Amino acid sequence: MVDVPKRVNICECWARDGIQGWDPFVPTEKKIAIINRMVEIGFKRIEATSFAHPKLIKQFSDSMEVLKGIQRPKDVTYIAIIPNDKALDRLFEACNMGMGVQEITAILSASEDHLLANLERTFAEAMPPLASIVKRARQAGIKVIGCIGTAFGCPLAGEVPVGKLIELTDWYLGQGATAIMLGDTTGEANPRQVREVYQRMKDRFPGVDFIAHFHDTRGMGLANTLAALEEGIVYHDSSFGGMGGQPATRRPKYHKGFAGNTCTEDMVIMMEEMGIETGLQIDEVIETAFMAEEICGRELYGHVSRSGLVRHRSPNPLCFQDLKVGREIPAALFFVGNVKETLSSRELSRQVIREALEKSWPLPEGIDFDLTGVSVKGDVEERTILVTRFKALELNKADKQALLEVLSQKADGDVYLEGRVKLLFRQ
Amino acid sequence: MVDVPKRVNICECWARDGIQGWDPFVPTEKKIAIINRMVEIGFKRIEATSFAHPKLIKQFSDSMEVLKGIQRPKDVTYIAIIPNDKALDRLFEACNMGMGVQEITAILSASEDHLLANLERTFAEAMPPLASIVKRARQAGIKVIGCIGTAFGCPLAGEVPVGKLIELTDWYLGQGATAIMLGDTTGEANPRQVREVYQRMKDRFPGVDFIAHFHDTRGMGLANTLAALEEGIVYHDSSFGGMGGQPATRRPKYHKGFAGNTCTEDMVIMMEEMGIETGLQIDEVIETAFMAEEICGRELYGHVSRSGLVRHRSPNPLCFQDLKVGREIPAALFFVGNVKETLSSRELSRQVIREALEKSWPLPEGIDFDLTGVSVKGDVEERTILVTRFKALELNKADKQALLEVLSQKADGDVYLEGRVKLLFRQ
Repeated sequence: MVDVPKRVNICECWARDGIQGWDPFVPTEKKIAIINRMVEIGFKRIEATSFAHPKLIKQFSDSMEVLKGIQRPKDVTYIAIIPNDKALDRLFEACNMGMGVQEITAILSASEDHLLANLERTFAEAMPPLASIVKRARQAGIKVIGCIGTAFGCPLAGEVPVGKLIELTDWYLGQGATAIMLGDTTGEANPRQVREVYQRMKDRFPGVDFIAHFHDTRGMGLANTLAALEEGIVYHDSSFGGMGGQPATRRPKYHKGFAGNTCTEDMVIMMEEMGIETGLQIDEVIETAFMAEEICGRELYGHVSRSGLVRHRSPNPLCFQDLKVGREIPAALFFVGNVKETLSSRELSRQVIREALEKSWPLPEGIDFDLTGVSVKGDVEERTILVTRFKALELNKADKQALLEVLSQKADGDVYLEGRVKLLFRQ
Repeated sequence: MVDVPKRVNICECWARDGIQGWDPFVPTEKKIAIINRMVEIGFKRIEATSFAHPKLIKQFSDSMEVLKGIQRPKDVTYIAIIPNDKALDRLFEACNMGMGVQEITAILSASEDHLLANLERTFAEAMPPLASIVKRARQAGIKVIGCIGTAFGCPLAGEVPVGKLIELTDWYLGQGATAIMLGDTTGEANPRQVREVYQRMKDRFPGVDFIAHFHDTRGMGLANTLAALEEGIVYHDSSFGGMGGQPATRRPKYHKGFAGNTCTEDMVIMMEEMGIETGLQIDEVIETAFMAEEICGRELYGHVSRSGLVRHRSPNPLCFQDLKVGREIPAALFFVGNVKETLSSRELSRQVIREALEKSWPLPEGIDFDLTGVSVKGDVEERTILVTRFKALELNKADKQALLEVLSQKADGDVYLEGRVKLLFRQ
């Protein structure tokens, strides 16, 4: 078995990398709302905004307002992109008002061609002002992520030697950077290369925090994330719905495809299914992904938000605490009964529901069912009843009663049984 | 470094699993055309059709016509799904006319609930007739893939014990199956589980050919493929554009999401980028994916078909043989020149084109440029010229001359230089 970290720390990048290349301006209050929601559901690292000049990226013209509006829990690290000294001055203003960020990202590319396309600077032109940014930020007590873009290949120049990554990492650490992000800016990486690069980087820089930042341009975002996980990387970047892009590579006729970030909700389900703790609840992550969709007014690229969760049985008996109002209970259950005798609707429903619930949980004896308005349509046939939906409608804390909506169908699709069932938890 | 196979064998499943759940009937001649194209570009294993009863799956009502129409190269293995004895009788008819297949797939599920939903049979009901199919096929000299669906989890029943996979594999091998397919029918697998399952299966059944068949339902198709590769699996299933689905899990209100197969073109680019030989050319694979799109009349889920290939420089000098008419030469190149003096359009173009070509190939001295109709627009500025397109228009074999179309633009997007360049290869 190849080891993976027990716990990871995912940085949600939607509010920066996600919407950086998104043309319609996202209203400030919506940016604030989604960042606050990220905090509520457990993200501890959030890319909150960029201080790029509003003339260059209009989307971030409200960076100060966003920073003023968001919650400030102590255990959350906000991150902002700081491209130049003036941007840092503006951030310091925000910091003085208690509205700053705990970390900034400083930007370089491993490929000089990309650096020129992105920032219109050569290494010789870009590095001295960047050094000043890193030093000033560190003096002000702000951590600095040294981002190395196009770390796994450049869409302009092709291959990037690992030696260049080592050289730039050395340089960043020398200036005082506190973490190094290897950015796969346009999705050129493959899993074998990811393993090789991280093996060399971790050998050369033991103890340094590396941040894996992949784009899903060629569909390898999660495969590359897996390779990075198996090389022990615990910091991972992602964006809701796989949103994201890279301005310098979206020029007309230059890069025809979309270049989204690795999708947050799909990354979370993969990690959680692998038993890696993300500190997040996948259903809440999916809800927030839908919030991002609603803000953008279009369907995004996430998979698990369409497919639903992976089906698991709980090792623990059904209990009142497991239920939440409005939540669906595992998507689909199948009943293979021995309905040989003629049963009343009530008896049948009771048996169907009990067995369907049993597929998810060991049912303790102490649960009573009370069926309200359950109707059975058509003939009763053996082994053809799919319980497709349980949804908690009401929970009565005092009496430990749960009202579930229930819907089932025959194997050929007709709705067979529908109604409500009241569960009474005696324990 | 974790080992991966040097060479894999990808089975293209579009013509069966891909269109199985696709409602519009794909005209027989289009099915034949795409299968023939698969053969031409190098696929050695192709799922050609299913002998499911036409009343159940109308899409395959032309299975005999498809088998009659396709090419028959000796090194290509065609595969068909055989659900029952009558289907096998029909296949034998085709075989007698020299229009058969070399392999059939026999279908079981690891989960009895799924087996009931899919085939409306219990294990006890399904296995005896299946044993007869396997035996009859083997007696007729046809290889048999023993498919175990829902091998990594069932959307109805949840977890599937590895013990069940071992039991069914034992049973299949006992009947004479020549390979075992572990089907992740509805995309429930995660990479950690894939490793664990394949480790146990390969320990228990050394020397048996296992086929990895993943669906991308939750976005983990390629990550699971990577895990399987790293466990030494060489047989992989995929479908163009990630098309595919599973009838039993697409019932209304039961499985809301799409459940596509792992995408062929994205699988090929990942493997080829990892240095794993697929025997396929990625650009030809992408062209065939577009053919599948055209047949379906909608954009499919592939990534690399939108983004274009990963940018690589050739270690070999540019030579006439590398060029193909109609092919684009690596997507985008950036010129960092020292255009300090005033240069004529001609001199400038020459320099831009030479340096841009140099980004892809070491340029041998023996190449002559002849610019035809290249025009330069606007002011010449240093380091702002993106050569966005080289495309071979003509190749003159006798004179070793190539006519390339060239288009470039400034970094801010305006077209800067366009025209044609004639390359004369002296060597």
